[in-house]
Amino acid sequence: MSDGITIALDVMGGDRAPAMVLRGADIALERHPETRFLLFGNETQVTPILGKLPRLAKSARLHHTEELVLDDAKPSQALRTGQRTSMRLAIDAVADGHADGVVSAGNTGALMAIAKTVLKTLPGIDRPAIAAFFPTRRGESVMLDLGANVECDAENLVQFALMGDVFARTVLGLAQPTVGLLNVGSEDLKGNDAVRSAGARLRSGITPINFQGFIEGDDIAAGAVDVIVTDGFTGNIALKTVEGVAKLFSESLRASFRHSLMARIGYLFARGALKKLAARMDPRGYNGAMFLGLGGIAVKSHGSTDAFGFANAVGVAIDMKLNGFLEKIRVELARLNQVPETQRTAAL
Amino acid sequence: MSDGITIALDVMGGDRAPAMVLRGADIALERHPETRFLLFGNETQVTPILGKLPRLAKSARLHHTEELVLDDAKPSQALRTGQRTSMRLAIDAVADGHADGVVSAGNTGALMAIAKTVLKTLPGIDRPAIAAFFPTRRGESVMLDLGANVECDAENLVQFALMGDVFARTVLGLAQPTVGLLNVGSEDLKGNDAVRSAGARLRSGITPINFQGFIEGDDIAAGAVDVIVTDGFTGNIALKTVEGVAKLFSESLRASFRHSLMARIGYLFARGALKKLAARMDPRGYNGAMFLGLGGIAVKSHGSTDAFGFANAVGVAIDMKLNGFLEKIRVELARLNQVPETQRTAAL
Repeated sequence: MSDGITIALDVMGGDRAPAMVLRGADIALERHPETRFLLFGNETQVTPILGKLPRLAKSARLHHTEELVLDDAKPSQALRTGQRTSMRLAIDAVADGHADGVVSAGNTGALMAIAKTVLKTLPGIDRPAIAAFFPTRRGESVMLDLGANVECDAENLVQFALMGDVFARTVLGLAQPTVGLLNVGSEDLKGNDAVRSAGARLRSGITPINFQGFIEGDDIAAGAVDVIVTDGFTGNIALKTVEGVAKLFSESLRASFRHSLMARIGYLFARGALKKLAARMDPRGYNGAMFLGLGGIAVKSHGSTDAFGFANAVGVAIDMKLNGFLEKIRVELARLNQVPETQRTAAL
Repeated sequence: MSDGITIALDVMGGDRAPAMVLRGADIALERHPETRFLLFGNETQVTPILGKLPRLAKSARLHHTEELVLDDAKPSQALRTGQRTSMRLAIDAVADGHADGVVSAGNTGALMAIAKTVLKTLPGIDRPAIAAFFPTRRGESVMLDLGANVECDAENLVQFALMGDVFARTVLGLAQPTVGLLNVGSEDLKGNDAVRSAGARLRSGITPINFQGFIEGDDIAAGAVDVIVTDGFTGNIALKTVEGVAKLFSESLRASFRHSLMARIGYLFARGALKKLAARMDPRGYNGAMFLGLGGIAVKSHGSTDAFGFANAVGVAIDMKLNGFLEKIRVELARLNQVPETQRTAAL
């Protein structure tokens, strides 16, 4: 259908690619039947799987390539030498206007490097950021940056706050999302220079953001704010720390239920409620990291996810297009950049 | 008893002080009956509680003071003006040789500032660090720094690694503890300058540490290493993020068991196993952050803990003294400082 959304897929990226990617796209089609897919990958591997997924086969067009980005490839190397990789071609499809967004479960660094070069950074954004959803006590929050920028200055953090704000308005549908800056304490004087200075600028009201000030690590799971802003070093470690703790917790819980006959019986009774909890905490439900600040929609899926998780990442790309994220972020950036430079730096 | 250990307590520090502190000391006495306590606090408040704790009253000596460090006091202010606060007097008791260690649940920044000034930093250590235990899949790990130093250079991180190593040898009793540096990836080139440079120095073998290289956030709960080294900004956020996720998880689990009659019945059967799990994950069991790198033993208890948690913090101070942490760290630092400066910086 011509009015449907087209998503370009790097079919060869991910631990269990291409089968996982194709099955994921098929699940995504169930939820968004209008979607069309441009598949980039090796036809010898893809065609047999596609043969078993007639619904997807009807909505997809396969572009054969034998090249792919290896998991251990350096970003610079993937960028320089990989003009014909499945990842590169999928990103090119967005730049050329053939697709509305790209999803890949491949090498994160390479995906960011290629997307930055091909899709370009939006005017007013110095560095794109990686954002993702976190389950919280109140529902879910968005956190960024999760690893694109190991070192960030105050200006980067302010831009992340702006992008996170627009994302929460458009994709989460919040009228006035709350934004917090991750720090080691809530007082104005806490933290390093970048965080303190970004905090001062956001408090000064140069942006339309509903800024709540500094938040601490325990505020993430508490859902204290809708958008959590941090540098890529801290964000990456916080994200993976949460993944590790969640895994330890669910393993320990499973072990507890195997602990005795009584516990096994208890599990049988509580199974329904526990499955609901497991579904809410399921990391696959939060799969799909958004690259924000680029001139196109690019979503990174966890490399080790399954088809269900990949379908969620595809859903994120579709949501961003459906809700006009790119158009809205352009408007906000233009508005911010109209503020005279003197006023922008006065809060420093 | 003259051969027992003496612990100085800031009786006025903590959300539920002084009752929580005194009851905690009483619980600690159960486990370590030889311990003697020097109590610093307001006798009008302390004496009635002490009257109900005859065992503690017999092993403790109360030093009256009406001053205390407020929770929102700035460290510099507490240091300058608080010569007679319960916190200051308790730390002075260690410096004067009247006590073997100090425990406080009060203002962390003030405690670190006063402890640094009064107890002094050990020769060879530029900045003390805060360390604490984390429950992991394999048992428990030590992590530092958890917030004493918001910005750290490579030298600081190397010193933290050394202190964590000695701590794990002495207090955890590990013959050859494994040490990892927290980073956003495991490859040598990942991370910021400080982490990369500290990694290069630790890999070069200038210390006797069993260095395992970079670890990521999910390795914390997995127990990938015995000692996790990081800067105070990242460490503080990781620690509090874990606390937040653990709290969300246990709340959600409780809610699940209240979800339906079936789930309630299930809980009754599984209760024994679940209580064991809860006990293992109980943050009170890991209460007690150690200030490492000082010329005396100082332990910070969580301000919101209860008597059971405070008793654990007292136990940590006793363990450090019993296992000769200070003597061993001095030996290791002297050995490290004998390495010629050229060799120390060659790895940079």
